[in-house]
Amino acid sequence: MPPLDLQQDAADLTAALVDVYSESGHETELADLIAQALANIPHLDVQRFGDALVARTQLNKPERVVLAGHIDTVPPGNNLPSKRDGDMLRGLGTADMKSGVAVMLRLATRIDKADRDVTLVFYDGEEVEAERNGLLRVRRAQPELLAADLAVLLEPTDAIVEGGCQGTMRADVRVNGIRAHSARSWMGTNAIHGTEPVLKLLNAYEARQPVVDGLAYREGLNAVAVRGGVAGNVVPDECVVTVNYRFAPDRTEEDARVHLKQVFEGFQVEVTDSAPGARPGLDKPATQAFVDAVGGQPRAKFGWTDVSLFSAMGIPAVNFGPGDPHVAHTRGELVSIAQIDECEQRLSNWLFA
Amino acid sequence: MPPLDLQQDAADLTAALVDVYSESGHETELADLIAQALANIPHLDVQRFGDALVARTQLNKPERVVLAGHIDTVPPGNNLPSKRDGDMLRGLGTADMKSGVAVMLRLATRIDKADRDVTLVFYDGEEVEAERNGLLRVRRAQPELLAADLAVLLEPTDAIVEGGCQGTMRADVRVNGIRAHSARSWMGTNAIHGTEPVLKLLNAYEARQPVVDGLAYREGLNAVAVRGGVAGNVVPDECVVTVNYRFAPDRTEEDARVHLKQVFEGFQVEVTDSAPGARPGLDKPATQAFVDAVGGQPRAKFGWTDVSLFSAMGIPAVNFGPGDPHVAHTRGELVSIAQIDECEQRLSNWLFA
Repeated sequence: MPPLDLQQDAADLTAALVDVYSESGHETELADLIAQALANIPHLDVQRFGDALVARTQLNKPERVVLAGHIDTVPPGNNLPSKRDGDMLRGLGTADMKSGVAVMLRLATRIDKADRDVTLVFYDGEEVEAERNGLLRVRRAQPELLAADLAVLLEPTDAIVEGGCQGTMRADVRVNGIRAHSARSWMGTNAIHGTEPVLKLLNAYEARQPVVDGLAYREGLNAVAVRGGVAGNVVPDECVVTVNYRFAPDRTEEDARVHLKQVFEGFQVEVTDSAPGARPGLDKPATQAFVDAVGGQPRAKFGWTDVSLFSAMGIPAVNFGPGDPHVAHTRGELVSIAQIDECEQRLSNWLFA
Repeated sequence: MPPLDLQQDAADLTAALVDVYSESGHETELADLIAQALANIPHLDVQRFGDALVARTQLNKPERVVLAGHIDTVPPGNNLPSKRDGDMLRGLGTADMKSGVAVMLRLATRIDKADRDVTLVFYDGEEVEAERNGLLRVRRAQPELLAADLAVLLEPTDAIVEGGCQGTMRADVRVNGIRAHSARSWMGTNAIHGTEPVLKLLNAYEARQPVVDGLAYREGLNAVAVRGGVAGNVVPDECVVTVNYRFAPDRTEEDARVHLKQVFEGFQVEVTDSAPGARPGLDKPATQAFVDAVGGQPRAKFGWTDVSLFSAMGIPAVNFGPGDPHVAHTRGELVSIAQIDECEQRLSNWLFA
């Protein structure tokens, strides 16, 4: 791989980042390239934690802000490499969130001119279980590195300030049966057939749409995996449906757990992974100052983001980045090049006021 | 592994065979042990085809019969090694069909005294897709090695002559959706949720119980595998339910294919594997002579067996072996030791008349 050129325009830099495959668990090559690029910027102190990188100015300014972005993507869906199409750049991670990472890298070259100290965090493992999250790894190792007056995550928000985030919980709903030879299936009980009522509950589920601190949220409950089967001639005795519950920030993780147990009453439900939501926090002064500087009307964030982690550390945090959040994790993922530039410009208005 | 001792009693020999793990695809160790034992029997010509073994007497008798048994098992279900429990021997493959293989090996030592030539076939890959079946491998390589006036498969039948066998067909029923981020699931269509009507059809399915050539069959249609899911935060766009249809021998494979397309009308159905059934064939003289010699009232075979392969070659074939077919492929698989001995005795009555 050639080194990253941080002087090229934001679209080309985004394309270069997209074209380095970095599905969760495979971020090392991209982390190496970013580390190499950051090492050439004299005003940054860079530290590495696995495939997570923390780059900080140390200019003794009265305020410090964090800009953070994950470098991993969901698995490819026949959408690599990137393709340019007029104002659109298409491909895996164009919106979620290599365009945001490109903006961070371009800002990095000149943040010695900012009127506050800046901490840039590039991290791995965001698209998978919380325990693999690189930001959590940094927090465990050196939490003081993340201290700030405000954190901005450059997740795709269509360049609109998004407050808070929904929580996420994954659980295994297990159906048991009795194993038998499929030629004498009446001797057994088919666990796969036994998931019909689980799917019926999911299809009938009515998601809440609560308003929290003035922003309207929208929940969801979905099967994200199903696995069952012993062999091609065996009536299976176990089938597991893995569900993902996205819950508005008026519910705690414990509320979410109780809710899942109620929805799937009568089934074995085991929570395997969860992360709390974060309330919008638009009443905090640093957040309000950010909103005023970048402009626009804030809205709720549906997706879970690491806003939640900063929120738990007592640091106000918002999402603001290029890309339509609705196309994230779809095969047709894309980003408007004009929006990448706009986002960089509006962040500059804030940082270099 | 110590060599197999063919002089030990049938129960101990069965236990020794069970204790050599031989799930389909992992039969080599057991095939090696059997090959080594057969090599010490001077009246047998032995040939090997992968992990399938064919051992024949060449005594120029007016008749030749085949005794056949597969040496593979389904995957373990916490049922290894074997355990003796009074008259019962418990463990994976005790019924299906290492007790039958033990009887074959004990008969092998003295079949030079039989009043007809005998071909013994020990083969791999019976519990999986037809294309991995060791008997088919032998037929492709040297079909004349299988020529005979009657074939007896020592599949578990509770020492009752079972005529014919049901056919088996596997098909993938595919449900498509639209991929989306699970935090904005309303943008996608969940393919796992979309399998609810497939499972509803399976749960509502009423299996036929036709009478064919005087024997009563019983069909079945079961999901044997389900797989779906992209990542823990993605609404999946594909889910595949693999079904296994066991059909009575009054239906051809083409009939079965048409039936599956009708049952799952509106879904994508792809047949991935099939094997025809075999009519009972109890009207054939060699079969009738066998039934007369071993005794008892014949009944229908529900499970698919390689009777079908011999039937397709124009060779009358029946199932007759120790073990309850209802416990095959269950975690609680077992065999009555008395029945192993009984089965050997009744086959001796036929072979050494």
